[in-house]
Amino acid sequence: MTQTQTTPFQSPAIGQEISCVMTKIDGSLLSDNKKLNLVLKNILKEEKFGILANTMHEFSPHGCTIFFLLSESHLAIHTYPEHNSLYFSLYSCRGPKDAEASFNKFKKILSPKEILFFKKQKVRVAVKN
Amino acid sequence: MTQTQTTPFQSPAIGQEISCVMTKIDGSLLSDNKKLNLVLKNILKEEKFGILANTMHEFSPHGCTIFFLLSESHLAIHTYPEHNSLYFSLYSCRGPKDAEASFNKFKKILSPKEILFFKKQKVRVAVKN
Repeated sequence: MTQTQTTPFQSPAIGQEISCVMTKIDGSLLSDNKKLNLVLKNILKEEKFGILANTMHEFSPHGCTIFFLLSESHLAIHTYPEHNSLYFSLYSCRGPKDAEASFNKFKKILSPKEILFFKKQKVRVAVKN
Repeated sequence: MTQTQTTPFQSPAIGQEISCVMTKIDGSLLSDNKKLNLVLKNILKEEKFGILANTMHEFSPHGCTIFFLLSESHLAIHTYPEHNSLYFSLYSCRGPKDAEASFNKFKKILSPKEILFFKKQKVRVAVKN
């Protein structure tokens, strides 16, 4: 457990979440877990995210989960080399368009031929407890 | 970095993601980071998820990020006690309805009066590289 001295979070109302499954990915990067981790770390640094923790779990025979705990929320990916696919989820509290630059940079490097977006439609639901 | 001997992942096509912001949360649980972590851990164990890593980051003066790296993908929450709100995201690869039981148990314990869902609509997009 770690602790910061400042609270960089803003209201979730202005945050942005991009979740998708990138498919039909060619090339060796999808199976190179350490390189994938480095690629993501460099993008997050370029986009001025604060990296508070970085966890990677490699599955056997293939696939990995990479997680970055950010001052501005989190980034998680799960790879499925056996399906030439990858799940990507970035949630940022900095602003409404804040996750897009990082997503686009990663997409360009990974070059998927197809992306299955979990397109967001905000739905407000009252809860009866 | 850790490694397992088996690959519990199934195709992402059958996975389920539930993302939302729970708001208007009363009570002290939202500010009790350790208890929140324990509540989530117990729910994940009850629902037979494999917990591979558990990371918590506490922000000052309030708010925390809790992350569980699962054999079946991941769970992340970000709390905003100053807004009486919490972001919740659970992605599971076990099946199309797999995240619902855990989400419902957590919702019952936290008792938010309103939930802002990021309702999912899968949109397939061809990428021109």
